[in-house]
Amino acid sequence: MSCLFCEMVAGREEASVVYDDDRVFALMDIRPVTPGHLMVVPKRHAASLAELEDEDSDALLRVARRAAAALRASSLRCEGVNLFLADGEAAGQEVFHVHLHVLPRFEGDGFGLRFPPDYSVRARAELEDAAAKIREAWR
Amino acid sequence: MSCLFCEMVAGREEASVVYDDDRVFALMDIRPVTPGHLMVVPKRHAASLAELEDEDSDALLRVARRAAAALRASSLRCEGVNLFLADGEAAGQEVFHVHLHVLPRFEGDGFGLRFPPDYSVRARAELEDAAAKIREAWR
Repeated sequence: MSCLFCEMVAGREEASVVYDDDRVFALMDIRPVTPGHLMVVPKRHAASLAELEDEDSDALLRVARRAAAALRASSLRCEGVNLFLADGEAAGQEVFHVHLHVLPRFEGDGFGLRFPPDYSVRARAELEDAAAKIREAWR
Repeated sequence: MSCLFCEMVAGREEASVVYDDDRVFALMDIRPVTPGHLMVVPKRHAASLAELEDEDSDALLRVARRAAAALRASSLRCEGVNLFLADGEAAGQEVFHVHLHVLPRFEGDGFGLRFPPDYSVRARAELEDAAAKIREAWR
């Protein structure tokens, strides 16, 4: 099983690269949500957040912030930026090598979030119940 | 102008906190997309990604990864995780103090992304044009 991003790191798959260092690279998403949509990818293979090393994690967000600044400073339309990451198939992950999306946003760009029908402010007791369950599993 | 998250750090606003250290804390979103939806927040005020310091950036993603692991290990339903961050009003930012959303996901949870009508794979030349504009603005 070959990995698309590992093939790019090895130079065997085409990519439009905007940034490259020892730990991570940033490349254009071939199916951009908005023009300028890119992804920051660790060079060391990690299928999921659970496999990602701390140093690669640090580099990922540092470079995503530089990408956001570059998008805002560029001639592309960028009035805001979303960062998005999908971990696991149920979360929409399609390539199983960690990648952090950086999306330039502008008024009327057509991108957005779709919320469940019961999306609403919850009572404190319900929030505390969820918090207790998370604290119990925290390592 | 008081800041909601700074008020929480000061203990003057209620929060359901699941994690707390010197740099960041994690708390339940009062309007959860799915049960267990939390946010990781730097304690030092930063209105935007541009104001965020590197050490807080590192802590943000490291703790978000621990939160993702805790959600998966918890008794809450969690088959996958999305990370989401809005930087700027055009990107949907509502509280102007950086916060990284951690969303537990499961089959049929009703959450998703809404794409523009022209969302499609682009020609390499178009991607290279965007890449060149970003590289030009990269610092």
